[in-house]
Amino acid sequence: MPEGEIVFGAGSYTTVAVIALIAAAALGCAFVLRRQVLAAPDGTAKMQDIGQAVQEGASAYLRRQLRTLVLFAAVVFALLFLLPGDGGVRLGRSVAFLFGAGFSAAIGYLGMWLAVRANVRVASAATRPGGRAEGARIAFRTGGVVGMSVVGLGLLGAALVVLVYDVEAPAVLEGFGFGAALLAMFMRVGGGIFTKAADVGADLVGKVEQGIPEDDPRNAATIADNVGDNVGDCAGMAADLFESYAVTLVAALILGKAAMGEQGLVFPLIVTAIGAFVALLGVFITRVRGNESGLTAINRGFYVSAVIGAVLAGVAAFAYLPSSFDQLSGTADLSGVTADPRVVSALAVLIGVVLAGVILWVTGYFTGTDKKPTLGVAATSRTGAATVVLSGIGVGFESAVYTAGIIAAAICGVFLLAGGSISLALFLVALAGCGLLTTVGVIVAMDTFGPVSDNAQGIAEMSGDVDEEGAQILTDLDAVGNTTKAITKGIAIATAVLAATALFGSYADAVSHALAQVGAVGGGLVASMLSYEIISPVTLVGVILGGATVFLFSGLAIDAVTRAAGAIVFEVRRQFREHPGIMTFDERPEYGKVVDICTRDSLRELVTPGLLAAFAPIAVGFGLGVGPLAGFLAGAIGTGVLMAIFLANSGGAWDNAKKIVEDGKFGGKGSDAHAATVIGDTVGDPFKDTAGPAINPLIKVMNLVALLIAPAVVAISVPEDANHALRIGIALVAAAVAFGAVAWSRVRASRLEATEEANQDAAQATV
Amino acid sequence: MPEGEIVFGAGSYTTVAVIALIAAAALGCAFVLRRQVLAAPDGTAKMQDIGQAVQEGASAYLRRQLRTLVLFAAVVFALLFLLPGDGGVRLGRSVAFLFGAGFSAAIGYLGMWLAVRANVRVASAATRPGGRAEGARIAFRTGGVVGMSVVGLGLLGAALVVLVYDVEAPAVLEGFGFGAALLAMFMRVGGGIFTKAADVGADLVGKVEQGIPEDDPRNAATIADNVGDNVGDCAGMAADLFESYAVTLVAALILGKAAMGEQGLVFPLIVTAIGAFVALLGVFITRVRGNESGLTAINRGFYVSAVIGAVLAGVAAFAYLPSSFDQLSGTADLSGVTADPRVVSALAVLIGVVLAGVILWVTGYFTGTDKKPTLGVAATSRTGAATVVLSGIGVGFESAVYTAGIIAAAICGVFLLAGGSISLALFLVALAGCGLLTTVGVIVAMDTFGPVSDNAQGIAEMSGDVDEEGAQILTDLDAVGNTTKAITKGIAIATAVLAATALFGSYADAVSHALAQVGAVGGGLVASMLSYEIISPVTLVGVILGGATVFLFSGLAIDAVTRAAGAIVFEVRRQFREHPGIMTFDERPEYGKVVDICTRDSLRELVTPGLLAAFAPIAVGFGLGVGPLAGFLAGAIGTGVLMAIFLANSGGAWDNAKKIVEDGKFGGKGSDAHAATVIGDTVGDPFKDTAGPAINPLIKVMNLVALLIAPAVVAISVPEDANHALRIGIALVAAAVAFGAVAWSRVRASRLEATEEANQDAAQATV
Repeated sequence: MPEGEIVFGAGSYTTVAVIALIAAAALGCAFVLRRQVLAAPDGTAKMQDIGQAVQEGASAYLRRQLRTLVLFAAVVFALLFLLPGDGGVRLGRSVAFLFGAGFSAAIGYLGMWLAVRANVRVASAATRPGGRAEGARIAFRTGGVVGMSVVGLGLLGAALVVLVYDVEAPAVLEGFGFGAALLAMFMRVGGGIFTKAADVGADLVGKVEQGIPEDDPRNAATIADNVGDNVGDCAGMAADLFESYAVTLVAALILGKAAMGEQGLVFPLIVTAIGAFVALLGVFITRVRGNESGLTAINRGFYVSAVIGAVLAGVAAFAYLPSSFDQLSGTADLSGVTADPRVVSALAVLIGVVLAGVILWVTGYFTGTDKKPTLGVAATSRTGAATVVLSGIGVGFESAVYTAGIIAAAICGVFLLAGGSISLALFLVALAGCGLLTTVGVIVAMDTFGPVSDNAQGIAEMSGDVDEEGAQILTDLDAVGNTTKAITKGIAIATAVLAATALFGSYADAVSHALAQVGAVGGGLVASMLSYEIISPVTLVGVILGGATVFLFSGLAIDAVTRAAGAIVFEVRRQFREHPGIMTFDERPEYGKVVDICTRDSLRELVTPGLLAAFAPIAVGFGLGVGPLAGFLAGAIGTGVLMAIFLANSGGAWDNAKKIVEDGKFGGKGSDAHAATVIGDTVGDPFKDTAGPAINPLIKVMNLVALLIAPAVVAISVPEDANHALRIGIALVAAAVAFGAVAWSRVRASRLEATEEANQDAAQATV
Repeated sequence: MPEGEIVFGAGSYTTVAVIALIAAAALGCAFVLRRQVLAAPDGTAKMQDIGQAVQEGASAYLRRQLRTLVLFAAVVFALLFLLPGDGGVRLGRSVAFLFGAGFSAAIGYLGMWLAVRANVRVASAATRPGGRAEGARIAFRTGGVVGMSVVGLGLLGAALVVLVYDVEAPAVLEGFGFGAALLAMFMRVGGGIFTKAADVGADLVGKVEQGIPEDDPRNAATIADNVGDNVGDCAGMAADLFESYAVTLVAALILGKAAMGEQGLVFPLIVTAIGAFVALLGVFITRVRGNESGLTAINRGFYVSAVIGAVLAGVAAFAYLPSSFDQLSGTADLSGVTADPRVVSALAVLIGVVLAGVILWVTGYFTGTDKKPTLGVAATSRTGAATVVLSGIGVGFESAVYTAGIIAAAICGVFLLAGGSISLALFLVALAGCGLLTTVGVIVAMDTFGPVSDNAQGIAEMSGDVDEEGAQILTDLDAVGNTTKAITKGIAIATAVLAATALFGSYADAVSHALAQVGAVGGGLVASMLSYEIISPVTLVGVILGGATVFLFSGLAIDAVTRAAGAIVFEVRRQFREHPGIMTFDERPEYGKVVDICTRDSLRELVTPGLLAAFAPIAVGFGLGVGPLAGFLAGAIGTGVLMAIFLANSGGAWDNAKKIVEDGKFGGKGSDAHAATVIGDTVGDPFKDTAGPAINPLIKVMNLVALLIAPAVVAISVPEDANHALRIGIALVAAAVAFGAVAWSRVRASRLEATEEANQDAAQATV
């Protein structure tokens, strides 16, 4: 059936309207949960004091970050409008971009806003009897608010676009997904740099040099460290998961329309609405029973809601879809496919749900404190820091391979379901992504748990108002948070791979539409620019460049943390040197100064990786063609998934290896072995909380940029390479922006270093 | 012109015979140089004593390693013979495999044999007046012997195969290249584990725990450390570069035949013969003038011989090739190509030569002691080991991106020369590889320089027979060696990318031949197994798995070193504990025991990565099809080049950052900053000398395995998937072998750790 004949019946409008109502209901639940969290007592005066300082720092940072990004969003809005396409759809896409970006920012802001208020309430709960269950409940409910908001806003946005644009919705949704991904990437990178610069800086001077505990109020970087947890782990992560949600949904809708027409556009929304329902269920059934660990309760909540989600999705498939592809009105040719759409759709969703469960388990195995890999890393601390670093890298590499292998196996499984039809396979991959996302509400709640309990512990330590039993409760909650954070990263990168794989299909679709419009393709170089054949040397060049972008992006993020942490080390050392009263508790350190440095540095540093991600695909696409650009995306996905999991899991293993030693193994706190694991943990900090998680939005931003520019690339290169100079010109400008940003960051960094050096020398001279 | 009509005229026989004579002449020169090296005085009795111990350890290791590998080679010989193809060619290919493997082993053995004899001679030269020039001369000539042998044996082997099999030569040469690559991979991995286990183990106990200098005779691991330099950096590296040489030449011959027929088969041999000539020139013109650094002399030798090589290759192209592709008899359709074959061939060779020069420069920039990146790493030592590790990783990532980008740019440049013809582009890529290889003689000489001078320093230190001035000379030579080693790795990986890109073409060729034989291809899953389209989900799965194999291989190599080094640490500690006389020079440590542990562990550990490399492509090819296998190779190349350079350059930067601090910056030897850089250097050891360099042969082994099995995969999957069960069976067996090896190494490792633990506990109890 040719395109344009897809109808969008009244039944579909009703269904989508109901879905929009479910989304609104999810937001309503978020509001109720929020009230519950805020109703808890907010601690002693000292706690409130500290909480206040953290709140102010976090809000100030996010406000400045969003102000910086508004400019960027305006430029992208204009550029999007310049791309070829139908006028109404183009405007809709640009407006949807703003909504996607706005929602992403709003979720991030909300996550941070609530987390900074929940921290003190969790700390306060630990001072009361029954504190363990009460603290876990507040922390998990805080996550619930963010989770329900992610689900609600994502679903509402998509449903509204489908209601307004019906069969034209996919093109408009590209803008929505792109906005969400772009903003999430900036929030991940900026927040990630802030949090780890503060953390590393605080640890290097406090723990290592001065031998004072973490979160000691004498350390000028502690407030910044706590602010960082909120802007990085809460705001950044919430935006990131919203983006995963939005982009996967967008991919499913685009491919669903192609494969199944009207029903293909509505079914992914139904699956996701089921996800909203089970997320709510998950948040409410997760309750710590008696003395069990918080992790047990969270895992139970996850598995129960996953099973219910899978069952409901199966029911929905059989209730909503017909029994044969012949009865569907997709544009893709599925006439040869004999499978039952209900069966394959339900199985694809099931594969996604199972994938989430397996990743949960594998990540837990590689980073858990009671499992062999992390115990092995801890054991190497007896031979020093170098072996700790090496064994952690080994664990990271290995776990990356297994996790990537599992994701690959899931894609292969889905592919087999499709029986050789690429169009159907791509849609089913996206559906598996939706299946994975039915668990996202609980996942967000799990993830938010981490920074909230971490911060609560910090506030308790700084205020000194929590007794030993309460402190132990908070330490336990914090350890649970470490594992849940690692799991979320695994799930997030899995959604990235599934969404990116599916978007590959939309990309090919966009290219073939554009090709149909330009008519005959010549031979020679133009043909090679359009070839998807992986054995062409330029496609291989694309693969290499895609992988290289991931390496460069990771390197930039790690370097940014190292640089910013260095600045903080010098500042904290200066305060200790110039104000000896700090060590004796007679003087109060200038916390604000460190927060300012973090804010300034992370805002400065987030621009370069952002420009790289947005402009590298443009340079490759216009410079080498759509085939090599596909290679670029494949290289970025392949290298990206491995790098992201490597960075997340080696970081997690180091963090928990340190905890193992701190719990008394291999010499315990203060031993050489402990010092060795502290070095490992510090190396892991920017791995797991800055570079690693940012790769997830990076992959999607690059995919969406490629999807958006593909028609323009085709239009400009065919026929006969008439616009040769224009094409090369665009590629060169894009390359100049991407690499100019990198070069500029180098120059600026070395200028900064020179100033820092001079200041240090001056300080040394006065001592 | 259809295949089979390519003629191989008398003129070509004469030309190839002359080339074989040139190759023999190169071997003759190697023999002369060898006599010159051995004629130098071989030092004091003490030096000879130590040299003897190193020689024995190294020979014993290599002999045991080769014995282990003979079995492996026999199995592969049989498997090769089972693959489909013409009987005579199949036998020739299997025999050529043995020759390739034998030559690779012989070159490795020769490199080691001579290096252990040159060491004492360089150390002895440093005791005499004019020692700097004399020492550099002996070390460089030793490299010259290896370089001329690499060039001579590679060229001789290829020329003889062409003489015997003429137009059937390419299929036979696949066996030659595969043998060379497979053996080189094992020698790189085994030697790499040996050398770094000994080095890391020696440093951890000696430098870090006991505070005695490197190469102190009281350290039981010093002899093993010196043995390691010879079996890893000399034998492994020589085999590796021989393999680069052989595989690139093989790729050029295969593609040359397709693109240009008879002349295409002969021209790459001519270019390589020119390389043999300029290598000889390079070895003889490299002379240290007055007080200049050894590096200046080496660089001069490199650049002069590169320029002469490029000019001669240009002359040869214009003298030998016709002015139009119509006059050539290749099987590929180049009728639309209007370019002048002489011009494009000469330019492709030139691009290769320039690429070598640029990589030389970039690597020097990122790892040089007087350049900003390494100085920056050294500067972070003021904030501790964690920042040293992080900044080194940052430098590694960044340099990987630039080097990969430069290689990608070279491929793009070559691609543009071909004007859109993929067949021609692939041949030109291979020719660029040959251009790169004209510099390989000098490169090998440069690389061998490193371990020889490192060992000479060790022998001087241990013997105590070298005065301060002599020691300074050897230290300077050693520092030069560090940089030349990093450069060689960059060049080696560049040849890997070019050869692998070119082999991609042979792969596609093999697949289409096989497809022509099996007739019609069905639809459905079979079609998707044969699709090269990068946007197919299973091709993307291939890309992910290819990258994953590189990660797993690297992780296994690093883990192996960590484990083996741990065993050595425990042994050296035991000797210090049980024989307190060692510290007071009253007792002699049991050097042989540590050599034995290194030998045992590295032989055990090299099997797993070897099986993984050989069987992973088989599993992917038979399991998913030839399209996904192409994706697998692309993923392995893309991730592999980045990983290899990252590992090599971050390791180089850490090593030299340590040297910067040792030269007195940031506190100098014994300061906290120094301790921090020692940790960085130790992390870098297995990066740069075990995992990193082994990726080069890994990529080629996997490419050649894919090339060899592609016809069998097609034959078994088409038509109609008749042999479905057999295909899946083969894939499962291959996957079981690859991953079984990994799992088995895990189990064994944990059993070993348990024993080690028990021994430690027992030892502690007796103290």
